[in-house]
Amino acid sequence: MINKNNYIGYQGIPGSYSEEALKEYFGENVQTKNYPEFLGVFEALNEKEIDYGVLPLENSSTGAINDVYDLLRSYGFYIVGERNIKVDHNLVVNKGTKIEDLTEVYSHSQALEQSSRYLKEHPNWQLIPYKNTAISARYIKEENLKTKAAIASKRAAELYDLDILAENINYNKNNYTRFIIIGRNLEVSERCNKLSIIMTVLHEPGMLNKSLQIFSDHKVNLLKIESRPIIERSWEYFFYIDLEGNLEKNNLQEVLHLVKKNSSYYKLLGNYQKSEV
Amino acid sequence: MINKNNYIGYQGIPGSYSEEALKEYFGENVQTKNYPEFLGVFEALNEKEIDYGVLPLENSSTGAINDVYDLLRSYGFYIVGERNIKVDHNLVVNKGTKIEDLTEVYSHSQALEQSSRYLKEHPNWQLIPYKNTAISARYIKEENLKTKAAIASKRAAELYDLDILAENINYNKNNYTRFIIIGRNLEVSERCNKLSIIMTVLHEPGMLNKSLQIFSDHKVNLLKIESRPIIERSWEYFFYIDLEGNLEKNNLQEVLHLVKKNSSYYKLLGNYQKSEV
Repeated sequence: MINKNNYIGYQGIPGSYSEEALKEYFGENVQTKNYPEFLGVFEALNEKEIDYGVLPLENSSTGAINDVYDLLRSYGFYIVGERNIKVDHNLVVNKGTKIEDLTEVYSHSQALEQSSRYLKEHPNWQLIPYKNTAISARYIKEENLKTKAAIASKRAAELYDLDILAENINYNKNNYTRFIIIGRNLEVSERCNKLSIIMTVLHEPGMLNKSLQIFSDHKVNLLKIESRPIIERSWEYFFYIDLEGNLEKNNLQEVLHLVKKNSSYYKLLGNYQKSEV
Repeated sequence: MINKNNYIGYQGIPGSYSEEALKEYFGENVQTKNYPEFLGVFEALNEKEIDYGVLPLENSSTGAINDVYDLLRSYGFYIVGERNIKVDHNLVVNKGTKIEDLTEVYSHSQALEQSSRYLKEHPNWQLIPYKNTAISARYIKEENLKTKAAIASKRAAELYDLDILAENINYNKNNYTRFIIIGRNLEVSERCNKLSIIMTVLHEPGMLNKSLQIFSDHKVNLLKIESRPIIERSWEYFFYIDLEGNLEKNNLQEVLHLVKKNSSYYKLLGNYQKSEV
């Protein structure tokens, strides 16, 4: 379980939403390491450089973050927690920059997409997808040009000493990103009330129905189903399913055993406490 | 129904996979119009500039194309057909370009992702997400530089008179994109054997189970379930569901009526013939 000597890894740089999720979940006084790619967090956890990793899994406007879903499956780690973070995007620039001088806007492709209605009012700006919102802010600072802007958080603007030219430019004012905390072991405590699994079904008619039926028969509530393609087997899917329950308290062990028997592939991703937001 | 005077719209330019899907579905002798954005195809269909549109909906390696899912819901058109297209990506360059001179590679972000294993062998290349694979190829041709390459189809290489430096660089050799044909009306014929719907469930425990149960009770086979976030209502979802069946032949009308009664939002997306590939 989590203690104060743990190292926690995240993707991005200080000022990123991932760092914010990390601080909210673990508090301010933990030791952190950051990595340029999602893959780096998984590798670091694998090599015990870090004890836990914090990764974005889905956004309430733009949906699943596919790479993280796929890495989660291939590394075999467990989700031990989740935290939803409110995401408000801002147009940030070097001090003294005027909106009419801008020609290029840098940000993560999802942040560009979430700000698309605002950006359409400025059709002459070139939109440049970049690794991360905070990295975009830092890049703007380093370049120190009056023609370039980034879309990033207020925290990133403060950290890199940038001005905010337009606030909350995301079209969905109810914009959250769901972050998961991953670890090397399954961690089940009394407070866990949400469960994630991956399964595939045999490629025969009715098999997906049959698996889902098991949950209904045992009154296990389904929260979400996501289909991800199986590489090399076109039009068959990994189903990522979120359920309600606690592995120790409910009849879930039995239910999952039945689901596993009905699947050609099955993996328990974790049992954890639902984020309150 | 489709006739030879119809105008068919697609996103992209000649040489795109969308144009290829269009030709495969409608044949070579139809009148086509092309648009720079997915949105343009929906708008053109709305304003009766075109009779049908051809759009990519999912790729067997990288998953759903979220924008098209969202547009499909908001415009209220119908899926009248689908066609799966084998997608093989190639590194294409101006004649005489050597691989060691390349510094930049342009393509659609999904094509870059699908070619990621090959691209990792060339870490010094800057990868630039661009609108479309065919537009990337045309751009390379226009720039006429020996430092830039595009990732595109063989058809695009031919059309824009470019050389192929590396063939089939997508890591998944079984890489297909599923295209849908959309029209203004529901079109049901004897050959239709696949159905798509969108539904939401009331935000109460067990409601997703209850809706899915209806399909199982009536022996309707589920093929796929995709969850898309509902903007302004965090962590509630539109469920996009593919089913087997024909609206005129099976008991589907009754089943869908029950599903609709159990949903806070329900929409029939279409009944069509499954692609053979």
